[in-house]
Amino acid sequence: MAHLPSGPLAVSLGDPAGIGPEVVAKCWDGRAAFDLPPFAAIGDPRSIAHVWDGPIEVIDDPRQADSTFDYALPLIQIAAAESDLPGRPSVAGAHCSLDSLEIAVGLARSGSASAVVTGPVSKEQLYAIGFAHPGQTEFVAERCGVGRGNVAMMLAGPTLRTVPVTTHVPLADVANHLSSALIEARGRTTLRGLQRNFGIVDPKLAVSGLNPHSGEGGSLGREEIDLIEPAIAALRAEGWRVTGPHPADTMFHSAVRAGYDAALCMYHDQALIPLKALHFEEGVNVTLGLPIIRTAPDHGTAFDIAGQDLADPRPMAAAIRMAAFCAAHREMAE
Amino acid sequence: MAHLPSGPLAVSLGDPAGIGPEVVAKCWDGRAAFDLPPFAAIGDPRSIAHVWDGPIEVIDDPRQADSTFDYALPLIQIAAAESDLPGRPSVAGAHCSLDSLEIAVGLARSGSASAVVTGPVSKEQLYAIGFAHPGQTEFVAERCGVGRGNVAMMLAGPTLRTVPVTTHVPLADVANHLSSALIEARGRTTLRGLQRNFGIVDPKLAVSGLNPHSGEGGSLGREEIDLIEPAIAALRAEGWRVTGPHPADTMFHSAVRAGYDAALCMYHDQALIPLKALHFEEGVNVTLGLPIIRTAPDHGTAFDIAGQDLADPRPMAAAIRMAAFCAAHREMAE
Repeated sequence: MAHLPSGPLAVSLGDPAGIGPEVVAKCWDGRAAFDLPPFAAIGDPRSIAHVWDGPIEVIDDPRQADSTFDYALPLIQIAAAESDLPGRPSVAGAHCSLDSLEIAVGLARSGSASAVVTGPVSKEQLYAIGFAHPGQTEFVAERCGVGRGNVAMMLAGPTLRTVPVTTHVPLADVANHLSSALIEARGRTTLRGLQRNFGIVDPKLAVSGLNPHSGEGGSLGREEIDLIEPAIAALRAEGWRVTGPHPADTMFHSAVRAGYDAALCMYHDQALIPLKALHFEEGVNVTLGLPIIRTAPDHGTAFDIAGQDLADPRPMAAAIRMAAFCAAHREMAE
Repeated sequence: MAHLPSGPLAVSLGDPAGIGPEVVAKCWDGRAAFDLPPFAAIGDPRSIAHVWDGPIEVIDDPRQADSTFDYALPLIQIAAAESDLPGRPSVAGAHCSLDSLEIAVGLARSGSASAVVTGPVSKEQLYAIGFAHPGQTEFVAERCGVGRGNVAMMLAGPTLRTVPVTTHVPLADVANHLSSALIEARGRTTLRGLQRNFGIVDPKLAVSGLNPHSGEGGSLGREEIDLIEPAIAALRAEGWRVTGPHPADTMFHSAVRAGYDAALCMYHDQALIPLKALHFEEGVNVTLGLPIIRTAPDHGTAFDIAGQDLADPRPMAAAIRMAAFCAAHREMAE
């Protein structure tokens, strides 16, 4: 590791019936090859034991992970009311995944953990137990006292970072959800996140257009002129280095990517298509705008393959590595 | 060349003030390294002489290109009323580019040329002389007696081929432009094009969704259920191998790409973002649904860099190579 944060990471296992326990255990197995710093898993140890026969050591405080990590997977125990089998989610498992998330965030807020990495949860299961947030990101934001509108989801890979302004919105409604204020807020969160989490002193942000060819001067849509250009102007007036609106189809090839630190995109697939086309196994979700560091692998619970030793641990390893990287930069910045 | 068509290709230079003449001349220079078959340029020789001092031989019939190609760039002359300087487009140049296109298409229709490759034109200039088509593709379709609705634009790179169902439409209007009939027609044109132009006997087509996560069962948009699934079902009922709707963000990484021959996408940037992120210098525009083969490099006139020896000939070389490949497959199929 080029930079090491001062404390271990807290890694929530996510839904005990999903692939979270398996990929976290595989990350510990591959800790040398993946170049991972010490981390503490948070969850039900039985969910790991169902899919892995390596050594687990139950600890109380993530700081104990430093001395344990060499010979066993350190784990802070969250006991579920019952033990789900892989691929068989339950209400008890949903409670367990929520408790794990809450503990992980609390440890990071208190400073016992240097960052949080969240394993995949099932929104359907969480909704069934009354979870009222769109996803883990909004829950973490609330627990950190940050309004939803002030966080941003970054997808980060080795050669590209993208941030969508809108996320889970039907395509036909994207334009209605956009405003100059929203684009400006997401842009500012992204720029500050590049400074605080990535140590980039004077970050460069490339802003995409919404329409084909960025609207061709208004003939293929006016959002660039009416919404995006004013937001870019406002950010520039604050001294930020911001360019655009760029036609989305020509801003993601290697020569162009090299010219900016992050791309601010107008909708979900505009941000995720290039990221996953280029960096499918290494794309990490980084929540910007929080007082803590939080990352996640960019995949779901994959109940259909859970318990079959088929899950690829590389996205989780990338998320753990990224969390450590960001935590080290955050500490240097503060 | 693995396959050689039986006659030379006709390559229109496009706007004489754009980079078309320069990249065609550079292709002849690099004909061995680029692995190019004989082709005849069609346009004003002065537009090449402005930017290149290599040998040009004026010919009357593309078939003469075979014997000329070794020692000079064969050219069928279209004299413009005046000779534009690079970067300085004019009405005379627009007429010249249109004449070049028309001659090139006529040569392919008559069988004198095995395929057409079109250099970049300026729509703004063409509109100024009364050109009433959205672009060269629709003009070529009309000259071939094919309705606009029956052609499709394919973007083809070494590891990915995409076809957008809608093209130059504001993003907010895309959903309104989609219909099951249109998706089905574009899918059928794509599948037949894969057979006729690429020699794929039983092609596999992957159809994208429109909304994030393909609409998540209707909660993020209903176009998948109402429009896309019926079109897929109709194509399958004809015996075609069609899958989808696939979430667009997870269908373009290498392991998934390997499972289909083309991706049918719902809108411009959904098709062009992944293609250009992966294959910027090698993306070729292939018009499907025509009785002739027509390809084009996927770039514009670039008036701003014309005449400065800055233009990259690789996209034009890829378009010429692709035209020869498709022409050879078309001949074998017939």
